[in-house]
Amino acid sequence: MATPTGSGQARLGRDPDLAAPGAPGVTQEETRRRNLGAVLRHVHVHGPTSRAELTSRLGLNRSTIGALAADLAAAGLVTEAPTTVRRAGRPSLVVRPRSEQVYTHALSVEADRLRAARIGLGGRILDLREVDRPGGMSTFDAIGPLAGLVRDMQRAVTGDALLVGGAVAVTDTTRDRDGRIRIGGPDEALRAAFEAGLAAGPGLVAGDLADIAGVAEHVRGVAVGTDDLVYLHGDLGVSAGIIVGGRLVAGHRGHGGKVGHMVVNPYGLPCGCGSRGCWETEIGQAALLRHAGREPGGPPAVVEVLRAAAGGDRAAQAAVRQVADWLGFGVANLANVVNPGIVVFGGSLRDIYAVGAETVRRRLDAMVLPAFREHLRLRAATLGRDAALIGAAELAFAELLADPLNVGAAGRSGTGPTPA
Amino acid sequence: MATPTGSGQARLGRDPDLAAPGAPGVTQEETRRRNLGAVLRHVHVHGPTSRAELTSRLGLNRSTIGALAADLAAAGLVTEAPTTVRRAGRPSLVVRPRSEQVYTHALSVEADRLRAARIGLGGRILDLREVDRPGGMSTFDAIGPLAGLVRDMQRAVTGDALLVGGAVAVTDTTRDRDGRIRIGGPDEALRAAFEAGLAAGPGLVAGDLADIAGVAEHVRGVAVGTDDLVYLHGDLGVSAGIIVGGRLVAGHRGHGGKVGHMVVNPYGLPCGCGSRGCWETEIGQAALLRHAGREPGGPPAVVEVLRAAAGGDRAAQAAVRQVADWLGFGVANLANVVNPGIVVFGGSLRDIYAVGAETVRRRLDAMVLPAFREHLRLRAATLGRDAALIGAAELAFAELLADPLNVGAAGRSGTGPTPA
Repeated sequence: MATPTGSGQARLGRDPDLAAPGAPGVTQEETRRRNLGAVLRHVHVHGPTSRAELTSRLGLNRSTIGALAADLAAAGLVTEAPTTVRRAGRPSLVVRPRSEQVYTHALSVEADRLRAARIGLGGRILDLREVDRPGGMSTFDAIGPLAGLVRDMQRAVTGDALLVGGAVAVTDTTRDRDGRIRIGGPDEALRAAFEAGLAAGPGLVAGDLADIAGVAEHVRGVAVGTDDLVYLHGDLGVSAGIIVGGRLVAGHRGHGGKVGHMVVNPYGLPCGCGSRGCWETEIGQAALLRHAGREPGGPPAVVEVLRAAAGGDRAAQAAVRQVADWLGFGVANLANVVNPGIVVFGGSLRDIYAVGAETVRRRLDAMVLPAFREHLRLRAATLGRDAALIGAAELAFAELLADPLNVGAAGRSGTGPTPA
Repeated sequence: MATPTGSGQARLGRDPDLAAPGAPGVTQEETRRRNLGAVLRHVHVHGPTSRAELTSRLGLNRSTIGALAADLAAAGLVTEAPTTVRRAGRPSLVVRPRSEQVYTHALSVEADRLRAARIGLGGRILDLREVDRPGGMSTFDAIGPLAGLVRDMQRAVTGDALLVGGAVAVTDTTRDRDGRIRIGGPDEALRAAFEAGLAAGPGLVAGDLADIAGVAEHVRGVAVGTDDLVYLHGDLGVSAGIIVGGRLVAGHRGHGGKVGHMVVNPYGLPCGCGSRGCWETEIGQAALLRHAGREPGGPPAVVEVLRAAAGGDRAAQAAVRQVADWLGFGVANLANVVNPGIVVFGGSLRDIYAVGAETVRRRLDAMVLPAFREHLRLRAATLGRDAALIGAAELAFAELLADPLNVGAAGRSGTGPTPA
């Protein structure tokens, strides 16, 4: 039987056009933009690469790659130089991202810290500053201190550097001054306020911290090479960055992945969101302290319980097991719904997983459909706290990578930020 | 502040390249393929369209559209003719899909029926045949009868018709002869067996019925225009087709959307999958009969309970409410995870929703985060039983739409199927 190319698949959904009835056509300019973006993205993600390798990796011919690389070099985004290693045949020029010169502002509003970094093309952290975030400080109130960190960083920037974008990762839960947990990811008003407050360079993107940290682990962390992943982030609350087929599940209103508010225990405790028995009430930091018989407290109290468990304290061990059991319960549900190749544990859930991996796994064995379980890897996050900043930089670079010459030119004409 | 084009977004994930570190370049041939596909897809989804309108809809210039349409016409995929309606100015040729000549085989293995259709470009059902599926008939055993239906249909096909693909939608639950429910979506072995059994034309795609019916509702049903949707299908079990950002959530192994095996009730009944308290145990057909105090039975028994509820029977009404309550519970969890714009109820869940919409809505009000709830529409499926076939045809057309001239030519050279 004749089987045309690409048929014979038992899997669905890999065709990006399958469910996209309104796909537009592709113009010549669009083709050029995409190819410039593909070259720049390759060196941004994989580091310095020879023209010869780019030719084979991107499936374009040698002269096209040469022209694209020359255009990117002329725009100041990459450099080209002969490789220092001598090989047989004609030497191929190596294309390098100009990491020191082309950079973004990456910011994070975390449960207890505010952080700001300058991150260069290629994902290099050029500068990083941080301050405490006092309990009760709203996300809007965090704009002032973050703008201060950005101004401090900008004083050290040399004249020919090019700011191409900015992004802020915002945790979706914060604790009010009275200790109550508040829920609410970034919205357009918050983004605009950040943009105004920073008063520097090109536009700003805002997103949920878990989404953004998930992107970071996918592009530069433990989930490289897996296009279907669930990144779980725990701090005061619990949220997820879900990537399906290589793309973030942003949701209809940009708020996908609020997994902390799946109800796992219909007979459970009231949750700050107004519901009852949310996952957060069983695996959040407060749950661990509660199960351990301790007073409510912040991250230090959580660390203490984890240390006690590692040191053999029975009550602490039982508390970690109980949280790990509910952790596995929710992961199993997500696995049956999304069928990820990998689940990554970040933030405080990384610590729970480190101690309670066996308990988590036992839950999965009991609840996840066998066909899914077989191929499901569980991993601790590897980028640690920097994931939010590294992911924010990826977001901030997205526009440059989608249209390198246009954004490069816009940034240059503005000669970067002029701090107030 | 200078804001480059496209920035200023508070939402993530709309950039298809954001989390795709390995995007290849675009060659000229690829550009042409994509544009041919865009034109053909447009008339396939939206019906006959003038060249002028294609020009504005696809963002390509007039001469490019003219050349693309001519190529598609030469390949026998569309016709071009002047519009019959007189307007001012030069008349624009109307491009029409050749629905009678260019077709696919769309098959479905449902809980209690086997169905086969010939569906033409543009989504027109040209022929449809069906037979009962006896309890206990495995999916493999369904191949023979379905191949028979296909042979019958092929006898009526005229010489110049062009078979461009086939797809089969398989429900992921079937009842064994002993009444036990078995779980397992299509895999590569099943797909290959179908392909061999049909022995007709180009390759065959296999997918979960819920995924495929979800695609149908997205492309031609109640969810047109919404790119983030959850389609829920109930028969013996419960499964979902989840579409995010316009793409099906296929999952790491092609098995996304097994929502029937989310555990909603940790203290619930054992499930056929080996777990306990799965959503299926609370909202499947068996649950409705159980709550109504009836003996286990098939679809007729379910219909009887629904009729009794509509007729005022208290016990039946209470049973529907109880199932609707758990239906809302699971939908709320999915909404918090995926943040869809619309949830569509299909199969037996359509009937539950029709009677218990208020109960479902009450659960969502209690459990879904307010920011999500506001924009969430709940709808009954509109394509009914044909959704599986219409969606299967979309899958089967995907290859043609991705590369119209290549697939068209391959189909033609084989002069279509030669039924045994």
